[in-house]
Amino acid sequence: MASNSFGNLFRITTFGESHGSGIGVVIDGCPAGLELTSQDIDLELARRRPGARAHTSPRNEDDRVDILSGLFEGKTTGAPIALWIKNKDADSSAYEAVKNLYRPGHANFTYLEKYGVFDHRGGGRASARETAARVAAGAVAKKLLAHEGIEVVGFLCAVGDVVCPDVEMKQLREQTRLSPLFCPDRAIETAMVQVLSVAQEAGDSLGGVVGCVATVPVGLGDPVYNKLEALLAYAMLSIPASKGFEIGEGFAAARMQGSQHNDRFMAEGDGVRLATNHAGGTLGGISTGEPLVFRVAFKPTSSIRKPQETVTVDGQVATLQMPTTARHDPCVAIRAVPVVEAMAALVLADAVLLNRSARI
Amino acid sequence: MASNSFGNLFRITTFGESHGSGIGVVIDGCPAGLELTSQDIDLELARRRPGARAHTSPRNEDDRVDILSGLFEGKTTGAPIALWIKNKDADSSAYEAVKNLYRPGHANFTYLEKYGVFDHRGGGRASARETAARVAAGAVAKKLLAHEGIEVVGFLCAVGDVVCPDVEMKQLREQTRLSPLFCPDRAIETAMVQVLSVAQEAGDSLGGVVGCVATVPVGLGDPVYNKLEALLAYAMLSIPASKGFEIGEGFAAARMQGSQHNDRFMAEGDGVRLATNHAGGTLGGISTGEPLVFRVAFKPTSSIRKPQETVTVDGQVATLQMPTTARHDPCVAIRAVPVVEAMAALVLADAVLLNRSARI
Amino acid sequence: MASNSFGNLFRITTFGESHGSGIGVVIDGCPAGLELTSQDIDLELARRRPGARAHTSPRNEDDRVDILSGLFEGKTTGAPIALWIKNKDADSSAYEAVKNLYRPGHANFTYLEKYGVFDHRGGGRASARETAARVAAGAVAKKLLAHEGIEVVGFLCAVGDVVCPDVEMKQLREQTRLSPLFCPDRAIETAMVQVLSVAQEAGDSLGGVVGCVATVPVGLGDPVYNKLEALLAYAMLSIPASKGFEIGEGFAAARMQGSQHNDRFMAEGDGVRLATNHAGGTLGGISTGEPLVFRVAFKPTSSIRKPQETVTVDGQVATLQMPTTARHDPCVAIRAVPVVEAMAALVLADAVLLNRSARI
Amino acid sequence: MASNSFGNLFRITTFGESHGSGIGVVIDGCPAGLELTSQDIDLELARRRPGARAHTSPRNEDDRVDILSGLFEGKTTGAPIALWIKNKDADSSAYEAVKNLYRPGHANFTYLEKYGVFDHRGGGRASARETAARVAAGAVAKKLLAHEGIEVVGFLCAVGDVVCPDVEMKQLREQTRLSPLFCPDRAIETAMVQVLSVAQEAGDSLGGVVGCVATVPVGLGDPVYNKLEALLAYAMLSIPASKGFEIGEGFAAARMQGSQHNDRFMAEGDGVRLATNHAGGTLGGISTGEPLVFRVAFKPTSSIRKPQETVTVDGQVATLQMPTTARHDPCVAIRAVPVVEAMAALVLADAVLLNRSARI
Repeated sequence: MASNSFGNLFRITTFGESHGSGIGVVIDGCPAGLELTSQDIDLELARRRPGARAHTSPRNEDDRVDILSGLFEGKTTGAPIALWIKNKDADSSAYEAVKNLYRPGHANFTYLEKYGVFDHRGGGRASARETAARVAAGAVAKKLLAHEGIEVVGFLCAVGDVVCPDVEMKQLREQTRLSPLFCPDRAIETAMVQVLSVAQEAGDSLGGVVGCVATVPVGLGDPVYNKLEALLAYAMLSIPASKGFEIGEGFAAARMQGSQHNDRFMAEGDGVRLATNHAGGTLGGISTGEPLVFRVAFKPTSSIRKPQETVTVDGQVATLQMPTTARHDPCVAIRAVPVVEAMAALVLADAVLLNRSARI
Repeated sequence: MASNSFGNLFRITTFGESHGSGIGVVIDGCPAGLELTSQDIDLELARRRPGARAHTSPRNEDDRVDILSGLFEGKTTGAPIALWIKNKDADSSAYEAVKNLYRPGHANFTYLEKYGVFDHRGGGRASARETAARVAAGAVAKKLLAHEGIEVVGFLCAVGDVVCPDVEMKQLREQTRLSPLFCPDRAIETAMVQVLSVAQEAGDSLGGVVGCVATVPVGLGDPVYNKLEALLAYAMLSIPASKGFEIGEGFAAARMQGSQHNDRFMAEGDGVRLATNHAGGTLGGISTGEPLVFRVAFKPTSSIRKPQETVTVDGQVATLQMPTTARHDPCVAIRAVPVVEAMAALVLADAVLLNRSARI
Repeated sequence: MASNSFGNLFRITTFGESHGSGIGVVIDGCPAGLELTSQDIDLELARRRPGARAHTSPRNEDDRVDILSGLFEGKTTGAPIALWIKNKDADSSAYEAVKNLYRPGHANFTYLEKYGVFDHRGGGRASARETAARVAAGAVAKKLLAHEGIEVVGFLCAVGDVVCPDVEMKQLREQTRLSPLFCPDRAIETAMVQVLSVAQEAGDSLGGVVGCVATVPVGLGDPVYNKLEALLAYAMLSIPASKGFEIGEGFAAARMQGSQHNDRFMAEGDGVRLATNHAGGTLGGISTGEPLVFRVAFKPTSSIRKPQETVTVDGQVATLQMPTTARHDPCVAIRAVPVVEAMAALVLADAVLLNRSARI
Repeated sequence: MASNSFGNLFRITTFGESHGSGIGVVIDGCPAGLELTSQDIDLELARRRPGARAHTSPRNEDDRVDILSGLFEGKTTGAPIALWIKNKDADSSAYEAVKNLYRPGHANFTYLEKYGVFDHRGGGRASARETAARVAAGAVAKKLLAHEGIEVVGFLCAVGDVVCPDVEMKQLREQTRLSPLFCPDRAIETAMVQVLSVAQEAGDSLGGVVGCVATVPVGLGDPVYNKLEALLAYAMLSIPASKGFEIGEGFAAARMQGSQHNDRFMAEGDGVRLATNHAGGTLGGISTGEPLVFRVAFKPTSSIRKPQETVTVDGQVATLQMPTTARHDPCVAIRAVPVVEAMAALVLADAVLLNRSARI
């Protein structure tokens, strides 16, 4: 239902195609009185911009947002905030040659079957370009969260077999910001660059894992269907190319014993907190006050230079050979980092507002 | 928002506490004309019933559903279908002794912080008892799915370190039905029983993984936020004790190359299908027509017999020693199998109805 | 969508048929910490009970609510509150004779066309019996509103041609409570009784108008689609037999000039208020702080003793002659008074919670 | 909740302010395969355009829509359709002088109280300008309805005391199209022009009533809260300046007897229909197949040239004298006609899609 909207009280609706005139988002429900500038949004857009980093797509988007509505004298008014990002560099010629082929790992098959039509110029709504709108909306959510003392930091956990060890929040925040791969560890980053180069030379791509840590107060999330982890899982699996979500120990928890996994409660100052954080920041769907810690798995980029066997829309056997002018990331997980952050911020902004009605 | 509801067109709302008079669910949006009996629901309830199997909680619920509304002459009428399951064996005395302790892995801390109140008698809404309402609603969803030729089969993939290899759909369907642990492989089942016994004797518990396969037509799910895998992830992470979700290759996809992971299209008869199913049944959020294949990680049961250090609600150090009369599963993943199936059925029933509006 | 639910943050879902085992409602989103007893609800149910008043249906329901969930030690817990009202006196024999006739003014024709099935025993979901669930839920909403200093008073404005003049809030509150017809004016009440008796003797029925006044703070309601008056209109036109809604001067405003209709702003104490209340309590969809004043038109009861020409479900001409044992109100507007109040309370409870997110 | 969205399956979200860069709407859920051009929308926009008619505001908007997304080769794709209408002639200087005054009948008081901020340049979201987005979205809904054989015709029923008699559908359709006042009766139109001129010369304004007729199939609408008339009432009372809604006999039904009001069923061909249409096209919330007939009351335009006593935002007594350059309609009901049509079309498009899930 309304499949292009996300959230309840802080709710976004996105629109636009990768090779149309632009992409946009309407944010409905942002409280009045929040200071906001287009620069706040442009900074986040710059982080996911292809072309800004090695090993991401060379498409030069140079995105700048237009805030079409919802601001007055530098502050939100409670009215919907519409953001618009023009498509400046949308070259669809590369797709012309392959428009009648079902492309492995792509959505043109399922779109055609569902809707009877597919915009072959770069993927339409199925394009990663759509995630720019999420990042723009997430920038506004982050402003609201900053006001509540909530911080969200995403990072690149793994590329192929290169896996980043756990790091402290301080290092995470500072090192990730400096890294073109959003990797908090310099040595690991170097190793990642190496495997990416190998894959790229082979005309192939790699999968990866994005991690995310958020500092939140106790009490966010709802007990049954809107558990905080359920909303995060929903948000993360809605990101193109994502294949898995885990919180806290995640799949590793399945191999643990209760006595290992249970986090002990302890007194601290006047309050109570957890001594460890195996749970990853929630109990019963509600935040514990410990950091939210979760990971999202991304498949390798579907678009590769290597020739691939496939069929045409008429079922004829054919070989897909992407033109060299087509632009793709060797590992979508890299650019997914700001998208994961944005989606987490949207979940948390909504949870903050919903929590205002928990008690009389 | 309406955190006790799930779904859009086929929408459920659950209510009731583990130690109140019963639990229930209202299904709104089930199309008229579907044949339904209370036996359809009781059969599913029997599958998740504790006490029905070794290695699940000895609480004897013997659940039978009352269909309070929505049927006329054996068929659904389009009106809401309310289902009610009485709590017959709700002994809360075991909880009296520990009611002032924060219980590791449990929600009484977060509920108290959020709401200022917590029903200490067995966990209230946080209890696994709530999942009986999901299973009851899922039974109705399955009837609708059967009408559409859709089948959902859940099974136990792993308990602790014992992992079940992949099996064919036919074996999956037939062997799982016969297994008290919902395990499709007899030898693995035996090994699972063994590790469960060891854990139980040690007063401890084990985590596990539940798998699920569903045969679906092409075209279900929506492209952006309501991707089929996003809705499944949302549904699965809303199940108590779940910590992760993955579809297709899942986290393993992060270690693959694009040329390995991409599923090749091929002609078959008059149509086109995929030669492999690494994706796990969706592309761009929409079902491909190949089986949906996903897994859900569950943490080890939080309630264990081993004494655990914790604090009281006043912050005093204390030891939690559950009374021997308290009843718990050594591995929640076992009983989670029918719950995973039910939640998947709810997602798919909704997707089937939503898909009716995809084209003019 | 979820057509048996109403509201956003304070959201109800109703179920049950007039001649099934009972009717119920689940309230999701009621904040924790609200004191609530079944007596709070029974008092409201008694007000709409048929048989309690002259000139309402003699069906003796003697409704008492069971609170199935959501309370702990006399207070709401934040969990869904399920209310259940058994059908004790559901005699469907009167409907057996007319089950193959399309009944003028009734929904059996449209239900059959839409769903292919209709529960002929008393109307199923189309019965006024469904409104008992609204009144029960409204009683809970009123408790929340009382906590916020909001009061809702409904009354009978008109029966046929007998129209009640405007009265002050104090008289409205006090006299209405004492009147079996919910009429705040004793002389008008006497005249109403007279026309009702005439109609009843003639085997006919009368329409009526229900008025409602609510004292609310400034700021409730949202600017565009969820204008407070839009939500009230939605709520009121969802009540069976209602045919119109107007707020403030309503349809009379269409015959006024701007200089007459505009309410002047004036200073009062430290604040600003309106000198008159032609608008009926909102401007731009948001409450002004002046009382909400609106009216709802009800058609005459469709079920009458007079014989009526109609056709059978097979299209054969027939005469509908309701058995003398069938029980109906001569004027549905009377019993609609507590339903109007309840629906207004539900709208306002939701608006109060939504308003908590208006500002950062 | 998401107060700038309307509808369920066919869902719109509007944004933009009267004196910002433009206004827009995102339509989510429009089925794929519908032919659509910007001309379809511009034709509807031209109908509500101020300056196009005598007795409407002289503001010259000359609106043309940009379709930002959702089309491919002239047809809808199932993706969100974003429409954007630039503000070309937004002169806010007239508002500068009165920006510190509470304007009678306007929303600046309630907005300021609710949000702590108000965009004084022309009313922001509270401006009638927002309705252009509704009309644009309604144009798309009408295309879908035309495909289903559904037609919606709005007209001006009354201006002040000048009331239009009922006319046949054919005359309604044809005459209304020709009338600058959307009035289906030439003589009445002349009388309306006269009273409008008198009011305008006096620096005053008049209220009015808009009627609407829609030809629909049987079965649209849902039985309880989403009764078709409830959704229409919700839609209509969300239009700025509307004060009342009635369907069929409406408030007149309150003065009728059941034997008068009940519509008799009769056989026609192989089917059954109603001999009269007092109900206005629904029974039990579901369309009967007879035309939907409803009316909406509008208050007189709040902005008038006559000086009005009021207070400043600081509570000081002041006189509001709108500058002669401010542009306002003497009767908002005239321009409301296409808005009423658009909102009705949105309700019906949604109902058509929802109805696809009524039966298995």
